[in-house]
Amino acid sequence: MPDDAPGRVEESAGWRPVTRSRTYQLVVEAVEEQILTGALTVGDHLPPERELAGLLGASRPAVREGMRMLEAQGVLRTVGAGPGSATVITALPSEALTRLLRLHLALSSFRTSDVIEARVMLERRSAELAALHATPEELDLMRTALDRMDVAALPMEEFNELDTEFHVCLADAGDNRLVADITRAIRGAVRDALLAAFRARDDWPGTAARLRAEHRAIYDAVLAGDPAEAADAVERHIRGFWSG
Amino acid sequence: MPDDAPGRVEESAGWRPVTRSRTYQLVVEAVEEQILTGALTVGDHLPPERELAGLLGASRPAVREGMRMLEAQGVLRTVGAGPGSATVITALPSEALTRLLRLHLALSSFRTSDVIEARVMLERRSAELAALHATPEELDLMRTALDRMDVAALPMEEFNELDTEFHVCLADAGDNRLVADITRAIRGAVRDALLAAFRARDDWPGTAARLRAEHRAIYDAVLAGDPAEAADAVERHIRGFWSG
Repeated sequence: MPDDAPGRVEESAGWRPVTRSRTYQLVVEAVEEQILTGALTVGDHLPPERELAGLLGASRPAVREGMRMLEAQGVLRTVGAGPGSATVITALPSEALTRLLRLHLALSSFRTSDVIEARVMLERRSAELAALHATPEELDLMRTALDRMDVAALPMEEFNELDTEFHVCLADAGDNRLVADITRAIRGAVRDALLAAFRARDDWPGTAARLRAEHRAIYDAVLAGDPAEAADAVERHIRGFWSG
Repeated sequence: MPDDAPGRVEESAGWRPVTRSRTYQLVVEAVEEQILTGALTVGDHLPPERELAGLLGASRPAVREGMRMLEAQGVLRTVGAGPGSATVITALPSEALTRLLRLHLALSSFRTSDVIEARVMLERRSAELAALHATPEELDLMRTALDRMDVAALPMEEFNELDTEFHVCLADAGDNRLVADITRAIRGAVRDALLAAFRARDDWPGTAARLRAEHRAIYDAVLAGDPAEAADAVERHIRGFWSG
């Protein structure tokens, strides 16, 4: 308990301890402030833990706890281990977003119908942008994922991984990293739910055949440079899976 | 350094320590697993730190570091302080998303043009949904924000807060919490950049007047139940600010 916090609190009288930032929160704020002002940028090393603790007037455990909060947000990582380790500013928003959304989907923070609507919105736009901007290399990556999904008797788990990969390639080809990262995060976050839905299907070979054909339709529209058809094809695909 | 890690590493020979999960990461995974399987849901209390350390075979500092990672993701919070404190599973995705995106925007993980496109995509859809679904109470909240923005000589900071509030109310009225949370996070994350842009304007009163009129146009279309016009009005508003 902080030194200046009340030793006893009469809950019955409606007294509550005043809100007081914990030391690790102050450590987080100190680093965030430097990121927000641009004083710290990607690739910069933070001072070693002992030195940082001294600079901030915080204990080393509080510094370590603060570092974990920043690590969870994908803005820093520890390189190496032991005395020679370093803490480096990084930009890994996609991984952090995926973890965050996966947990919140599991906690039912969002309805399935909300997730479908969000996917339709994001992936329609990604498909339009991909139809306008996809490079030959990006088209190759998409086609490779689809060719690999054509293998007969492919295990459901691998099919699902390649399905995710196709949608991520499509988002990347749209050349908007924020949209791609949010798309990737939502697609990654629903991966297990999709796999469970695959397992619940009576006619998996029939479902797989339909999904393959729908993916090809999206790919063909992107290849043809037809943004309207690419957007409609991806919307039909996303809505179709959950409705039938 | 972990007990079984090499004591010396010959970097020059290309040797690297093998990747090894740190104990706090294992703590995070243990809690995440229980959230993902549904064993832990919102409102559940985690065992006290000492007990959790025993259950997981981890040190108490490692447990605390793991808790911080989960806290940063908005899935738990500590209630109270000292011996009587408790760690409770929560669902605060919006706050966690906002912090995450704000930091990554500062780190230039995303281009400004990407952020504008993402906002247009999300807010067009929110405006459409709001035009279809907004309740009288939600319309009241939007109008109240706009009325407060009409005050002459309103400080720029307050204008900006109310501007954010209007966009958040609009997103909430769309009745899709995932879209609303992402919208809120992006709008919150760009708040400081918008304020800097406000400050850089030669003609702030003129800019403020234009923004007020654009907000009214969005509101009127939502009130009239016209989804197409609501979407177009919000797109003109977002693109107009950055282009003129």
